Amino acid sequence: MTVPAMLLSLNHVANRDAAYLETIFALSNGHFGLRAGDPFTPSATAGTIINGLYETTPIQYGESAFGYATHHQTTPLLPDLRQIELTTTTGTTFKTQTLVDKTLDLETGQLSETWRVSDGHHQLLVTLASVVSQQEQTSASLVYTIQSVDFTGELTINKSLTAPAQQADSDDPRQSRQVQTLTTTTEHPDGNTIAMSIRTEHSDQSIDLQLQADTGLTTHVTMNPGATFTYQVVAQVSQINTVMPAVSATNIAIEEDAKAYWHEFWNSSDVTIEANPELNRAIHYNLFQLAASAGRDGRTNIPAKGLSGTGYEGHYFWDTEMYMLPFFTYTNPAIAKQLLQYRHSILPQAKQRARTLGVDHGALFAWRTINGEEASAYYPAGTAQYHIDGDIAYAVDRYYNITGDHEFMVTTGLELMIETARFWQDFGNWSQINGKRQFGFYDVTGPDEYTAIVNNNYYTNRLAKFNLQRAAELVTEFADQATVLGVKADEADQWHQTADSVYLPYSEERQINEQDDSAFQKPVWPFETTPKQNYPLLLHYHPLNIYRYQVNKQADTLLADYLFMDLPHAQLKREYAYYEAITTHDSSLSRSIFSVLAAQLNDTKKATDYFMDTAQMDLVDLQGNASDGLHVANLGGSWLSIATGFGGIQFKDQCLHIDNHLPTAWPALTIRFCYRGRLLAVRYTHESTDVALIKGEPVELMVNGKRQQITTAERSSH
Amino acid sequence: MTVPAMLLSLNHVANRDAAYLETIFALSNGHFGLRAGDPFTPSATAGTIINGLYETTPIQYGESAFGYATHHQTTPLLPDLRQIELTTTTGTTFKTQTLVDKTLDLETGQLSETWRVSDGHHQLLVTLASVVSQQEQTSASLVYTIQSVDFTGELTINKSLTAPAQQADSDDPRQSRQVQTLTTTTEHPDGNTIAMSIRTEHSDQSIDLQLQADTGLTTHVTMNPGATFTYQVVAQVSQINTVMPAVSATNIAIEEDAKAYWHEFWNSSDVTIEANPELNRAIHYNLFQLAASAGRDGRTNIPAKGLSGTGYEGHYFWDTEMYMLPFFTYTNPAIAKQLLQYRHSILPQAKQRARTLGVDHGALFAWRTINGEEASAYYPAGTAQYHIDGDIAYAVDRYYNITGDHEFMVTTGLELMIETARFWQDFGNWSQINGKRQFGFYDVTGPDEYTAIVNNNYYTNRLAKFNLQRAAELVTEFADQATVLGVKADEADQWHQTADSVYLPYSEERQINEQDDSAFQKPVWPFETTPKQNYPLLLHYHPLNIYRYQVNKQADTLLADYLFMDLPHAQLKREYAYYEAITTHDSSLSRSIFSVLAAQLNDTKKATDYFMDTAQMDLVDLQGNASDGLHVANLGGSWLSIATGFGGIQFKDQCLHIDNHLPTAWPALTIRFCYRGRLLAVRYTHESTDVALIKGEPVELMVNGKRQQITTAERSSH
Repeated sequence: MTVPAMLLSLNHVANRDAAYLETIFALSNGHFGLRAGDPFTPSATAGTIINGLYETTPIQYGESAFGYATHHQTTPLLPDLRQIELTTTTGTTFKTQTLVDKTLDLETGQLSETWRVSDGHHQLLVTLASVVSQQEQTSASLVYTIQSVDFTGELTINKSLTAPAQQADSDDPRQSRQVQTLTTTTEHPDGNTIAMSIRTEHSDQSIDLQLQADTGLTTHVTMNPGATFTYQVVAQVSQINTVMPAVSATNIAIEEDAKAYWHEFWNSSDVTIEANPELNRAIHYNLFQLAASAGRDGRTNIPAKGLSGTGYEGHYFWDTEMYMLPFFTYTNPAIAKQLLQYRHSILPQAKQRARTLGVDHGALFAWRTINGEEASAYYPAGTAQYHIDGDIAYAVDRYYNITGDHEFMVTTGLELMIETARFWQDFGNWSQINGKRQFGFYDVTGPDEYTAIVNNNYYTNRLAKFNLQRAAELVTEFADQATVLGVKADEADQWHQTADSVYLPYSEERQINEQDDSAFQKPVWPFETTPKQNYPLLLHYHPLNIYRYQVNKQADTLLADYLFMDLPHAQLKREYAYYEAITTHDSSLSRSIFSVLAAQLNDTKKATDYFMDTAQMDLVDLQGNASDGLHVANLGGSWLSIATGFGGIQFKDQCLHIDNHLPTAWPALTIRFCYRGRLLAVRYTHESTDVALIKGEPVELMVNGKRQQITTAERSSH
Repeated sequence: MTVPAMLLSLNHVANRDAAYLETIFALSNGHFGLRAGDPFTPSATAGTIINGLYETTPIQYGESAFGYATHHQTTPLLPDLRQIELTTTTGTTFKTQTLVDKTLDLETGQLSETWRVSDGHHQLLVTLASVVSQQEQTSASLVYTIQSVDFTGELTINKSLTAPAQQADSDDPRQSRQVQTLTTTTEHPDGNTIAMSIRTEHSDQSIDLQLQADTGLTTHVTMNPGATFTYQVVAQVSQINTVMPAVSATNIAIEEDAKAYWHEFWNSSDVTIEANPELNRAIHYNLFQLAASAGRDGRTNIPAKGLSGTGYEGHYFWDTEMYMLPFFTYTNPAIAKQLLQYRHSILPQAKQRARTLGVDHGALFAWRTINGEEASAYYPAGTAQYHIDGDIAYAVDRYYNITGDHEFMVTTGLELMIETARFWQDFGNWSQINGKRQFGFYDVTGPDEYTAIVNNNYYTNRLAKFNLQRAAELVTEFADQATVLGVKADEADQWHQTADSVYLPYSEERQINEQDDSAFQKPVWPFETTPKQNYPLLLHYHPLNIYRYQVNKQADTLLADYLFMDLPHAQLKREYAYYEAITTHDSSLSRSIFSVLAAQLNDTKKATDYFMDTAQMDLVDLQGNASDGLHVANLGGSWLSIATGFGGIQFKDQCLHIDNHLPTAWPALTIRFCYRGRLLAVRYTHESTDVALIKGEPVELMVNGKRQQITTAERSSH
């Protein structure tokens, strides 16, 4: 592993906009995140973000209706733990003059930043080394090194905790809303410590923040030009509703904790794109931030923006299962399991939601949520995206296939499969379609949010079919547990029969799967007369305007094609061409899938072009809103592009497949991942596909279409 | 005309609930309405309602999007002008003990009410005679007759003006919201007068209310058992943004004004159902309240609840054109003209709205509005109901056909036809449907609000086809004016061609018109397992739940069948049977149409059953929410049931048709109406159809299928 690819600096990022940098260099550990704000300049967007902490406020509707989501759940932005105040005895304060450097070390998890600060007369150079603990997950080490450039005299260093200033609420649905109902109490148990307790008024959650400075919260130090003083702070962030442990870790211990964690992480997760330092850095950055975003406790999940920003209010979406879980399933199955455990924990709310939607059996997961209740205030692109049930079922099945974790299925997975299958069975309906009795789903919205409230969305139907089929198979495989869960024999039979008859729209004329019953009837969006600045369309056109045209925000039918990978090559090629022409990629979830499928179609140019955009999405600020937080699903998507696309890693027909689709321009690619208890490393070159068994028992794989027993470093000719 | 049918008393109404009675006995004159509250008990729902007065407040969306309606427009409930305070020198106050009587005289417009009031010791009988002026429209006469039952001593009478107490906002979309931003100033220019000026803070409208009591606002009178004192008050309500005239009318003048107006009204509008006093009273009541609800100044329209309640916030909907205008067009064309003039006055806002929806030409009228801007906060059952454009065009054409008002077409009607036609032309799209190049409309909602966001709603397409066709014909007929309005020859040609190719969904299997492209694919709503208390469905089921089934809130395809009346009898019969089985009539707009069509199908039983419900909807509180205001569209619907249904009055093939569909149970029916400057009276019996020319030149009509010259009282054998 070359060191440069593991260091991200200012010259690798899109711009120096303060809020953008706060996101890009944010540090997190699945429990909390620190946005990387300027510590000398309080910012309304810098602060601390806690995974799973939310405040509720009633949703105001212009016109309400039965069964609408009742409450927003909003993750608040908490005080910025990194703020520091440097003042002189004459009362002047040092403020940032220049940001000299920011460097994130992806091997150690340490962020090193340097600012030149000035009080108008003299200058200091301040370096801050920040690390968040990864194993115990409640600490951060903040080490400030203050060097006088030309200042002589007494310097007062002061640490305090202040809530970020409130911003105005935005109309952009991708941003967050402000939380006004936090109550805060602050204590100073001793001169070295400040402790803040924060409580959400309506959801009744609490969190404790604490700062401990080794030389005192207020420290006076005499400086001369060239002199250096090191000021060490340990920050602590309690678990939600949990009292802070009395003893805090040391700065060194936190650094060691993180270093060890990331070492282990890269050992099982590393991806190396050889001879391409820029892309190699980007993919490492993505995996680092993706891993840092995931809740690891079974009670939390992965917010759409991770813990790097409060965009989308800190909510969990289907993004987890479809875009992020594959990475964890293949590299850190323990985390994948916890993420699915979270879904299991909200099954009661999901069952209730199904009832509210008039479905008497099974569970319907909330489209966006933290606490399990639906928080989407716009059902056409929220609750109507029933496919989330199929996405979760698919993720359960994938987890089981890749890990072979039988115990998980018994305790968690099977019930998720059953309750989602029950939902589809009860939600859908039989009717005569094309002369056959078929099973369909009406008034649904697929992944593509530029097409809403349609009948028989191909993706939805395909996932429902899969869900019913797999649930039926799994209740046979786990017959005892199925009985415990109340599944009757005829119930599984019914799922089998229904699955066989789920209707899948297909256009005879175009010889491709059709996005929904009426997709091809509508005119194509007038792309040629749409000005570039009118993208994303959702910010410039009324939903009814967008919906009445053929235009996709993201992969929809193609997403199903990627998941099931069972289309004849020629049809996939037609389908890809058709849908690509009507897709805006206004969603960050789009390009990765187009990259994967292009790789499968051996269209190297498209595959790498889409991958470039995917891999560097936030580093070049492709979507223009990275300041609100990272596009974490896309971080996972970039791994999909590499692993499933170029690396051809996919479980199919009860076997793991590895297919070499290495782009022409890349000399070699190495991917590490786990499969049923083994750790494997695959090195792809244009000559060969080498599968190394790093750890574990020998295993049989399909490599480039040939069955192969992997016993140690195996070599397969290409 | 028998007198009993013209008197509505307490024993003719559903119950004695205070808010219900406030609605039923409300008096209005197109400009303002007085809810008939208990004058001794301030009520949060009693007060004064001004047509066209509204306050704006920003619409709060849980999740907003481009082009959403930005502001609520809410008609506030203003002070109750009828309140009076009766106190004794010992400080006791007389409060209602018993409501003795309420009688509304439909011939004079006078409401007479009697209460027995008590101060806990003694009793008075108080009678209030209320009349609102109909010609100058800004005054009301309130005459209180106070008789002592057993009270001896000095009685203090006091009149003041107090704003109604605020109620909590409701989640029922049919109710109103509260207005909190009125500023009020009150003056007492002299001891007899109280003047209140009310201003809406955001919409910047003003209205002045004034009370003048002949004996002083505070009057002391010595009472003995049996003694009577008459206290006369003239109330005045200014026009919006207009200063009150200095001199007010006298009580007598107001009574005379109303009496003369209603005399003239019944002369041109009377409907008599013979030998059926109850129904006869109901229809008279309906026409009285309908006439009292209509704005007559070209700047206002007919709120969904008239001026009898603030339900639906005082908004104007398509109800006007489709349900209420027919009555005015046939009986009071001057009012019909003013109502269409209102639409013309908001054309600029409608053009702007079309642009916001991505349609470059023409106008799209707001689904619900007062000031012309869209105020619907739920576009799937608001803005998506594009058919309002066709409804307005249809109403223009009907007005022109029935009145022959050439001048109106030049100044107003033609432009409405053109701008709506332009909208359809630009909004729709060509595609191959059933092997033909046809013109369709995607993602629309028809009249039936239990089915939303569908493709090619039959009703919408049918109206669009009509609109394009008639616009093309009328620009030929009014060629000069069309040129002034910028219509090019090829534009009209295009409308012709498009109209010819508008796609109309038809089910070959069922041999009936299909509500939309996917209507019959969906399962039928599980009516058999739906408890009675779960109606109206909209209050008990999520929209997605309702939408995914075949279930109609109201006539949809059948409404088109009624408008165009061109289906073969057998098909109409099939269509009626099919849609009737899936219609809940949860909308008050439904039953009248089912009655009309049943009459046309000679199904007398259904026609009269639906008519009974229609005619007495508010008098029996069929919908359960008359307390929020009258269902004014249904008032118009009851006239449609009679005139178009039983009376067969309809303009078709360039001629007015009269067809006798008199129900078996009725011995005779007489309908008065105007046609091209004539006043006609048609008496239907089971033996004959007699058309009398009351006023005007001879005219040719089709009576029971035969062309007939009406010169004087004509008799046509049945």
